[in-house]
Amino acid sequence: MSSEQQPLEFDVVVIGAGPVGENVADRTHKAGLTVAIVEKHLVGGECSFYACSPSKALLRPIHATRASQRVQGSDGAHLDPQGVLDRRDSWINHLDDSGQVGWLDHVGITLLRGEGRLTGSKALEVDGREVRARHAVVLATGTTPAMPPIPGLREAKPWTNREATTTRRIPERLAVLGGGVVACELAQVFQALGSAVTVVEQAPGLLGRNEEFAGTAVEEALRRDGVDVRTGTKAEEVSRLGPTGEVTVHLEGGGTVVADELLVAVGRTPATHGLGLDSVGAELTEAGYVSVTERMEVEGLSDETPWLYAVGDVNGIALLTHMGKYQARACGDLIGARAAGHEPDAGKTTPWADDLGSPQVVFTDPEVAAAGLTEAQARERGLNIRVVDLPMDKASGSGLQAEGYQGQARIVVDEDAGVLVGATFVGQDVAELIHPATVAIVGKVPLTTLWHAVPSYPTMSEIWLRLLEEYGL
Amino acid sequence: MSSEQQPLEFDVVVIGAGPVGENVADRTHKAGLTVAIVEKHLVGGECSFYACSPSKALLRPIHATRASQRVQGSDGAHLDPQGVLDRRDSWINHLDDSGQVGWLDHVGITLLRGEGRLTGSKALEVDGREVRARHAVVLATGTTPAMPPIPGLREAKPWTNREATTTRRIPERLAVLGGGVVACELAQVFQALGSAVTVVEQAPGLLGRNEEFAGTAVEEALRRDGVDVRTGTKAEEVSRLGPTGEVTVHLEGGGTVVADELLVAVGRTPATHGLGLDSVGAELTEAGYVSVTERMEVEGLSDETPWLYAVGDVNGIALLTHMGKYQARACGDLIGARAAGHEPDAGKTTPWADDLGSPQVVFTDPEVAAAGLTEAQARERGLNIRVVDLPMDKASGSGLQAEGYQGQARIVVDEDAGVLVGATFVGQDVAELIHPATVAIVGKVPLTTLWHAVPSYPTMSEIWLRLLEEYGL
Repeated sequence: MSSEQQPLEFDVVVIGAGPVGENVADRTHKAGLTVAIVEKHLVGGECSFYACSPSKALLRPIHATRASQRVQGSDGAHLDPQGVLDRRDSWINHLDDSGQVGWLDHVGITLLRGEGRLTGSKALEVDGREVRARHAVVLATGTTPAMPPIPGLREAKPWTNREATTTRRIPERLAVLGGGVVACELAQVFQALGSAVTVVEQAPGLLGRNEEFAGTAVEEALRRDGVDVRTGTKAEEVSRLGPTGEVTVHLEGGGTVVADELLVAVGRTPATHGLGLDSVGAELTEAGYVSVTERMEVEGLSDETPWLYAVGDVNGIALLTHMGKYQARACGDLIGARAAGHEPDAGKTTPWADDLGSPQVVFTDPEVAAAGLTEAQARERGLNIRVVDLPMDKASGSGLQAEGYQGQARIVVDEDAGVLVGATFVGQDVAELIHPATVAIVGKVPLTTLWHAVPSYPTMSEIWLRLLEEYGL
Repeated sequence: MSSEQQPLEFDVVVIGAGPVGENVADRTHKAGLTVAIVEKHLVGGECSFYACSPSKALLRPIHATRASQRVQGSDGAHLDPQGVLDRRDSWINHLDDSGQVGWLDHVGITLLRGEGRLTGSKALEVDGREVRARHAVVLATGTTPAMPPIPGLREAKPWTNREATTTRRIPERLAVLGGGVVACELAQVFQALGSAVTVVEQAPGLLGRNEEFAGTAVEEALRRDGVDVRTGTKAEEVSRLGPTGEVTVHLEGGGTVVADELLVAVGRTPATHGLGLDSVGAELTEAGYVSVTERMEVEGLSDETPWLYAVGDVNGIALLTHMGKYQARACGDLIGARAAGHEPDAGKTTPWADDLGSPQVVFTDPEVAAAGLTEAQARERGLNIRVVDLPMDKASGSGLQAEGYQGQARIVVDEDAGVLVGATFVGQDVAELIHPATVAIVGKVPLTTLWHAVPSYPTMSEIWLRLLEEYGL
């Protein structure tokens, strides 16, 4: 850093140019503020290049071909693995972020390529260059893949979601450590593309954050696909034969899994390293996420006026792109209002729906779509709940969608408040069935009113009618 | 009728055993009442055998194969016309209603096969046999296809939805009179199954009850499929060469359409003929539907206590199976309560959502899914509205669903009340996107709250976020 160089100054500086950072930048910029966004890798972030977009791009052809095989009157399409990889490549634009960079240029947001590090109140450095923020700094750095302390694991150079979602080489044998969303989605993709996949998961079942029946359905489906699913199994040690030879995962109790590649998908770690959080006194949660108020203000700072915010995965509230973007919109509006001298009440500038439970879709076949609280989460909160379960084929729209349709639906009702607090659907094409639950939960629509929201016949959404009938309406 | 024969007596008698009649029978039976249901044709009705079920059964293989052709990485499935017809046959159970009859037997509802005719207060005849109702008679007879007074039409023995949805013979050339839901869905089916289809519609566009852009999209799609769509064209005369020869439709202005079969789908007529409505003084609407109060009580009767109800298509409120079933549930609960001596307040026993506009899905490719009011309907009601339009591909979930996804979304907002009053989606796989609109409209969820109902990334439902952003939230 040359001491003669003038510090760059912006109203708002956002660190991290994933969808979450982009949304804060967009909202604050629309509020009339000058905005810089700091990114050390790709503008568009993990979601666009290494997570949601490529995985959905890979999964959709699997869904579409299978759907065509499950309807009488169709001769059934088949997967073309090279075509699937080409599709993925065009969705990630061959890891070229010029489109996103063009958008920043177009709207007038300054891109600072490099690593951002806080150095003091409203002050930071980007690769040594001094940058000042007049109003706010927003952390939107997300997470990186967690790497469990298994002897030999790091040395075996395992794949993370990044290598798995961008590979053009389909390993003959793939071992997957983990049983969450990333593990399940990618296990299914690689099995469908020709790998022999083995999943090793410590927990007794897959998708542990969802209702148990969801994990069970996905586990059964993966087994039907040919995936070797080993739940309740711990990896003790990993070794690789030479730099590119086969990988052996040694399991507790003596078994082994031998594969050509090993994908580690056991969770995420907040990307806080090198952010200079200490320099401003920022507090971390027990799990190492940046601790924030319900308005996304970073806790622990000594300044009287809030200026540091953390949105998206890095605050650990909900590791989901759409919830991060939601926080980003609220936070962006808050910063805009404060910069204009207003202190707005809740409403748009507080992401209060965070507390109701996030919607999430797992794009496996069967899909899992959930919103709000699971039964267990609702009980933990001490709610007086009633749970209603139904097979999805209680709606004739499901049977019309695919011959022998299999799936399961659950709603969780807060009996004291008379409102829905959770819903989970499992089955083919349920991804779009969950938004009504989110609207009902967030809108606190009384069940007695929801009864009058009639689903069209014969859609799959008629499961809503069946669930409410089963509840006793 | 033998005068010695004792009249049959039930607490409730329902005339018409379609889904609507079945629902009233079910709800009143569950309320502890004895129930008879009168049916002259098939238990399960028009919807199960000649309308929703067979048409969706025919359309779904078209959707599934096309979806598989529109995704890179799939080799694309093709339609097997015989398989499509077989699928339809199993959905209509080869026109055998023993399954539905078995359900009536199982739950303990008495089936009276024959024509029901009112003869006085709580009194009717079924094929001459006297039947009495202690509490209520419910009319659920639905509609029959309208037959416009075009010279030669009746003599040409045209198809109605019944012949079209049940045929095993695919005519080489099919002419369709009409441009509504039935006309559009069946035109697409027959074109896909191999017919050369011509649609003749008087109105300037198709799907006239929907937003104009919906009809335009479906018209363009039908043309792409190869259908000859002639809007703004009136049929003046019809003639058939011999009993089974080709049919010629003579158009106003001189053109002709020659086909092997002619499908008439120009609307519906209430099935009130022979119901004995005069005998009790029942009022009809101008269009000939049975006039009812908001609680489905037939108007014009001199009795002090309500006993005659009309639900479903026959009352003309909404010619949709799901809305009829909705009315049936409310009406059944009302009859149950009144029989028990309660006069319930609105709530479950008044189908008040009728007044907010019905949800409806047209299962063409592209699908049209709508709820609440169109822009035009909202303006007619004098609402101060704002309309927001967006192409569906503003949600990246749409692009992931199909390469080059095309579609359109609209919401209609009541600016004074700050709530949604209408929504329409057009595109592949939008059928399940509409229920959130229905929940928001019926729940009167403020837009500022709806903003916090976050759709999952990357689903197509994210169009909700885009629409609200575009609105200015």
